[in-house]
Amino acid sequence: MEFTAKDIASLIGGTIDGNPEAKVNKLAKIEDGEPQALSFLANPKYTQYIYSTKSTIVIVKSDFAPEMPVEATLLRVDDPYSAFAKLLEFYNNMQKEKTGVSPSAFISPSAKIGSNVYVGEFAFIGDNAVVEDNVKIYPQCYIGDNASIGKNTTLYPGVKIYHDCVVGSYCMIHAGVVIGADGFGFAPQNDNNYKKVAQIGNVIIEDNVEIGANTTIDRATLGSTIIRQGVKLDNLIQVAHNVEIGDNTVIAAQTGISGSTKIGRNCMIGGQVGIVGHITIADEVKIGAQAGVTGNVTKPGTIMLGAPAIDISRFKRSIAVFNNLDKLAYRVSDLEKALRQVLAEQQK
Amino acid sequence: MEFTAKDIASLIGGTIDGNPEAKVNKLAKIEDGEPQALSFLANPKYTQYIYSTKSTIVIVKSDFAPEMPVEATLLRVDDPYSAFAKLLEFYNNMQKEKTGVSPSAFISPSAKIGSNVYVGEFAFIGDNAVVEDNVKIYPQCYIGDNASIGKNTTLYPGVKIYHDCVVGSYCMIHAGVVIGADGFGFAPQNDNNYKKVAQIGNVIIEDNVEIGANTTIDRATLGSTIIRQGVKLDNLIQVAHNVEIGDNTVIAAQTGISGSTKIGRNCMIGGQVGIVGHITIADEVKIGAQAGVTGNVTKPGTIMLGAPAIDISRFKRSIAVFNNLDKLAYRVSDLEKALRQVLAEQQK
Amino acid sequence: MEFTAKDIASLIGGTIDGNPEAKVNKLAKIEDGEPQALSFLANPKYTQYIYSTKSTIVIVKSDFAPEMPVEATLLRVDDPYSAFAKLLEFYNNMQKEKTGVSPSAFISPSAKIGSNVYVGEFAFIGDNAVVEDNVKIYPQCYIGDNASIGKNTTLYPGVKIYHDCVVGSYCMIHAGVVIGADGFGFAPQNDNNYKKVAQIGNVIIEDNVEIGANTTIDRATLGSTIIRQGVKLDNLIQVAHNVEIGDNTVIAAQTGISGSTKIGRNCMIGGQVGIVGHITIADEVKIGAQAGVTGNVTKPGTIMLGAPAIDISRFKRSIAVFNNLDKLAYRVSDLEKALRQVLAEQQK
Repeated sequence: MEFTAKDIASLIGGTIDGNPEAKVNKLAKIEDGEPQALSFLANPKYTQYIYSTKSTIVIVKSDFAPEMPVEATLLRVDDPYSAFAKLLEFYNNMQKEKTGVSPSAFISPSAKIGSNVYVGEFAFIGDNAVVEDNVKIYPQCYIGDNASIGKNTTLYPGVKIYHDCVVGSYCMIHAGVVIGADGFGFAPQNDNNYKKVAQIGNVIIEDNVEIGANTTIDRATLGSTIIRQGVKLDNLIQVAHNVEIGDNTVIAAQTGISGSTKIGRNCMIGGQVGIVGHITIADEVKIGAQAGVTGNVTKPGTIMLGAPAIDISRFKRSIAVFNNLDKLAYRVSDLEKALRQVLAEQQK
Repeated sequence: MEFTAKDIASLIGGTIDGNPEAKVNKLAKIEDGEPQALSFLANPKYTQYIYSTKSTIVIVKSDFAPEMPVEATLLRVDDPYSAFAKLLEFYNNMQKEKTGVSPSAFISPSAKIGSNVYVGEFAFIGDNAVVEDNVKIYPQCYIGDNASIGKNTTLYPGVKIYHDCVVGSYCMIHAGVVIGADGFGFAPQNDNNYKKVAQIGNVIIEDNVEIGANTTIDRATLGSTIIRQGVKLDNLIQVAHNVEIGDNTVIAAQTGISGSTKIGRNCMIGGQVGIVGHITIADEVKIGAQAGVTGNVTKPGTIMLGAPAIDISRFKRSIAVFNNLDKLAYRVSDLEKALRQVLAEQQK
Repeated sequence: MEFTAKDIASLIGGTIDGNPEAKVNKLAKIEDGEPQALSFLANPKYTQYIYSTKSTIVIVKSDFAPEMPVEATLLRVDDPYSAFAKLLEFYNNMQKEKTGVSPSAFISPSAKIGSNVYVGEFAFIGDNAVVEDNVKIYPQCYIGDNASIGKNTTLYPGVKIYHDCVVGSYCMIHAGVVIGADGFGFAPQNDNNYKKVAQIGNVIIEDNVEIGANTTIDRATLGSTIIRQGVKLDNLIQVAHNVEIGDNTVIAAQTGISGSTKIGRNCMIGGQVGIVGHITIADEVKIGAQAGVTGNVTKPGTIMLGAPAIDISRFKRSIAVFNNLDKLAYRVSDLEKALRQVLAEQQK
């Protein structure tokens, strides 16, 4: 399939700066551009490539002002990343859809399966489970007894949903995710052994949530571990029992959130962050990668870094000194020596 | 089902402070309390809720002294968390048990399967594997050749046990756990390539061990990686080849232990801790979250924090200064300036 | 089977120091040595054991000079670890090989399956997938549509390869690995929601790559996430979309690499390291465990540590001061007090 700059402008809006009849038939990164490819420029780090790219059309920000001649036809839009995302989605939707229920899946007779559902090979759907319309369940998934999956949600291969858990609509859950394993709760006994605390709650995932590969979300001891609508979780994240994550909060890979912590809405949490249990984090808080949050964060919009995490500007000032801390120590030694001489001089 | 305060006291012990005929039919967190619910108060952080909870009965510590009137009937016990854990277990045990061997599981003719075993759909049990009595193997698990699973152990969906590994009795292994993958061993070659070192040992998990979702425990190069009885591992933990973890040690999520390290008994290790290889950690050591342990810890009961990890009180004193380190640097600059003036004055 | 010291010398080279007819029938760690076992000594930490080991033969470095009498027959080689690795491989290759295609696997009629391939139970191979000669696919693996697996590669149980991804030859991919899940890309919208950016690229794994259990490698937004030949990845590693890892780079467990970062050849990266997105790391760089790399590393061979990561010797000097930072602060306070007295004295 071929599209002209004009076709694309009619799809995503924007104004054409160059040949409106320029033709493209593929998508490419700006630095890997080829003739007849469409690229985009959103991150300023990549601006250099626009002068050398071989791509035929490049989507740029409305106010992009080239500092050298550009060969490509430019398509100017308010938000190049969103515009490109729209095109990627358009391209993606042209792929073949999975449909039908495999005869080699196991579906309990008491499960309720909606219309237009895909159930792949060797998937397991337990007693009284509910799978709503247009759900896609890839091969080797497990949906435990009484669990439910909302309409238009996709579970990629090997997702495991334990009994009684609830997944909303329009969610996307990647391979290897485990939802509803037991929370980590043990009561210490007098003989140094631990007695398991049964975990009889569940996990509730609301609508429009995406969960990355091999992430784990534990069921609550009592009540529910809750992932609110619009949350995006990257790969290999740990969400402990009774945690609640607010609307549209985004969390990068390998972060861990300890039990009973409540995270606000619209937060952005970097990769490999650790958050202790039983605390509350306000809305719109930003936490930098590898930070360790050890107490409540009460002020919305706080930006934190470090382990233990502190205000980001505070951390940056401290770490700048840390990076030459031995020199500061030498200056203190020099001061001590100088002062001893001053004192000796005074006592003469 | 309904239970009175008296019924519950007869189950878990303790003394009733209020109406012995008060009736409950569910469990709830104290902050989510409802009429006819039973709650507990163990963590002092939640004490405030006892004055407003709608729960009919609350389990509290024997010596709990309310500062305001409490509406709920109180059940006083020595250890509310353990008592509540007992009730959760009682409730959990009332759930339907999984039984029977699915016709769609694959079981090698040479495998030995005990009595009263559950084998779920699409599970694989290899040649000469041994599965003892009362074991539960959920769908899509893999038990390699010659592996063995001790009595009353549960493997949740998708657990993978490689060949020759040994799992003890009364263990609980959560979805996605991988036991016995090759240790990470390579011999550097002259051309910058690496030659794989075959890993011909195994993993031994002793009795009463619980392992959280997606945790990985590698097989030994030679000999065994050993998880001693009573150990509790949270989710997404990495245990490298030839590691040994002592009795009843508890490790939180996302911690990593490098090859050949030996950890003592009754240790408590926080989340996201890293421990280098080829070291020994004494018994009863406590390591705070995100610490990096870089050498032997010889003194039992040591409490460590930081990366590299040091004694916790040492770390806390240092980090307190770190958090205002720029100010310390300014004070040093001020001292230098003042001293120059003093010297100038002396030389007059 | 029994082998003499002479047999083993003829297999791995080296000179015999002791009885050339000494017989062994098993491999053992030097510290767990038994009669008729063969052990090796490569790590100097274990030198003490050579004087007490019960092993009959020990492989040592050519220039090993005992400080006490050694009972074992010594086999002197240039590189004991590589020699022992060769023996382990020899031993490992004597194990029974998996072969044949299970009737309970699902293989799309349009998939191309080479000769001498093993496909285990409940494995799924999608439309137009290509599986070359001598590949071993263990039970419960998933190979998506159009994916390809090069000759002599092994996929252990439960590996998930998404559609369109390419795995090279002579690779080993451990249980639970997920290759080709969507990269973590979302375009922020005005209402605090995020719009998913479709990920239409793939993952390319070149030859001789080993990937540890439960590691995740995301597909590119556009183009490919690339793991170059000879790379070794440990367990639970996160590789984000559009990352490229250069030839023979080795990465320890639980490290995370953010999107679009390019890592050079022959690098060594420790465990739990975090690397930000959109940066370039030169060849032969070494990054210590738990470091956080926040910018380009342009000088080949750089050795870094800390979070944010700095030159290792710089970090070590700073952390030495940090560990007694409170004492430095007291010295500054003492200096201030002393200086005030000096000034008071001067003003008299």
